[in-house]
Amino acid sequence: MHALLYADGLQWRSDYPAPQCRDRWVTMDVLLAGICRTDLEITQGYMAFRGVLGHEFVGRIRTCDDPEWIGKRVVGEINAACGQCKTCCQGLGRHCPHRSVLGILNLDGCLAQQCALPKANVLEVPSALSDEEAAFIEPLSAACEILEQIVFHGQERCVVLGDGKLGILCAWVLTTTGAEVTLVGHHPDKLALAEWRHLRIASRLEDAPSQADVVIEATGSAQGLMDAIGLCRPRGTIVLKSTLAASSPLNLAPVVIQELTVLGSRCGPFARGLREMERHHFPVSRLISARYPLPDALEAFAHASRPGVLKVLLEPQ
Amino acid sequence: MHALLYADGLQWRSDYPAPQCRDRWVTMDVLLAGICRTDLEITQGYMAFRGVLGHEFVGRIRTCDDPEWIGKRVVGEINAACGQCKTCCQGLGRHCPHRSVLGILNLDGCLAQQCALPKANVLEVPSALSDEEAAFIEPLSAACEILEQIVFHGQERCVVLGDGKLGILCAWVLTTTGAEVTLVGHHPDKLALAEWRHLRIASRLEDAPSQADVVIEATGSAQGLMDAIGLCRPRGTIVLKSTLAASSPLNLAPVVIQELTVLGSRCGPFARGLREMERHHFPVSRLISARYPLPDALEAFAHASRPGVLKVLLEPQ
Repeated sequence: MHALLYADGLQWRSDYPAPQCRDRWVTMDVLLAGICRTDLEITQGYMAFRGVLGHEFVGRIRTCDDPEWIGKRVVGEINAACGQCKTCCQGLGRHCPHRSVLGILNLDGCLAQQCALPKANVLEVPSALSDEEAAFIEPLSAACEILEQIVFHGQERCVVLGDGKLGILCAWVLTTTGAEVTLVGHHPDKLALAEWRHLRIASRLEDAPSQADVVIEATGSAQGLMDAIGLCRPRGTIVLKSTLAASSPLNLAPVVIQELTVLGSRCGPFARGLREMERHHFPVSRLISARYPLPDALEAFAHASRPGVLKVLLEPQ
Repeated sequence: MHALLYADGLQWRSDYPAPQCRDRWVTMDVLLAGICRTDLEITQGYMAFRGVLGHEFVGRIRTCDDPEWIGKRVVGEINAACGQCKTCCQGLGRHCPHRSVLGILNLDGCLAQQCALPKANVLEVPSALSDEEAAFIEPLSAACEILEQIVFHGQERCVVLGDGKLGILCAWVLTTTGAEVTLVGHHPDKLALAEWRHLRIASRLEDAPSQADVVIEATGSAQGLMDAIGLCRPRGTIVLKSTLAASSPLNLAPVVIQELTVLGSRCGPFARGLREMERHHFPVSRLISARYPLPDALEAFAHASRPGVLKVLLEPQ
């Protein structure tokens, strides 16, 4: 099958072996897949991953031990947990120490014609959602993870730092809680795309409200955390979304003095992502910078790497 | 009165003006006061404080607009809040942006014959507690703050990093929850003093249990946080107690990937500190390295600065 690999550099392959269907797993034809910042970071050495890239997709079930599922349009949780260890038994399968992760850790990803996941990981996509909307369920679920970690009463003052895809999705999701949400970014074109419902926009840090109850750090830079600390009220909460590979000089004394809560936040539950997308139809099509057929994957990847570009999608079929 | 000042260096004064009793404030004769690591840091420039040092004490009410309080033995919350701002109205007086702090911020401290605080800050010391026990209520309350921030079910696996005074107090307090608590330190003499009830002791990081539910970082070093991250289970909690003045290189990617919660933790409620001390009589006398009469304050301060020394107390009366 066609596939975009990372192994001693980025490789386009037209003869990559299609995934075999393992017991209690499904294989899927990929309908639409997204290139994520994490994919770009993997080509810089992140996670030391080797294999087919990609973890954002919507697909159609090709093989499954339950014939009722064949042909269904699905999205899939990317963490394939063992299901048996102590962490899994605590309901923390996304943190299973034995897990593989689609296109990130020991499991071929979805920038290919087919991919495979445990059957327990796939969820049917409601007919009301487009393929494009479904292709955004993975990053949207990561944004929704914040709703799983913090109880919102709808009167919070929230600031989202970073006008990249994840920052914008986080800001949209937070507005649905009734909270006052301000997105802060430095890219006028991205901020214009982010305008939606009651979301407030600030192009300078100084224009963000101070004494915020909740600050989401999604800048992808170390300075973002220090900015978040500066904006947060005493006993407020900072949600860390950025993963930085390198160490950075940080002064966390204000976290102690102000008694801040810093929450690390990664993947979220896809069921919630699907539900919130069906309820709100977030305008994700605005975030699509380009679509390419899968055979142009190398060109698509180069496009996704350029500054200022948001989502680049690949069409394998 | 006699007082130990920090102003262009450490100064012993025998003629310092005694505090005047302001409206709704009390003045107290200091019975016993402790030298804290924060006092040492102030002499290195921390908080840019100028004035009488000291914030750990037990005293006797000297002047008060309510005559019933005169002569009572008391401890006092060190944060003097305005009581009127939004932060105070939310019950967060210890974070009042207009606050002064005994011996730390715009308010003369207790390494003197007398000190003053708002009447709302003082609590009577139960007769069952000794002066020494009462002098430890300030740091003990800071340790008890952890109990205010985390709901313990008594089955947690906890690790306390750091065998200084605060680390030992945190470890003792945590053992009262029924949790499994391990104190990790590198000083055999301090670890020997820390042994109490069910507390487990480890002299090497490798001997601490991995996959801890809660890790308390009380080492006073930047490496402590990275060690805490390494010991914590996915979705676990790290309590930050150390305030470091300088920036340090930190990699917080594991906080995001493991979805850790990092809680800044500073002062705690004195009422809780008193209650826990009365209930458990933590063996704080073991932590006293020396006692000096107040006129020997400079010598006492030098003693407190030496490596390996725990609490040094001053007797003003």
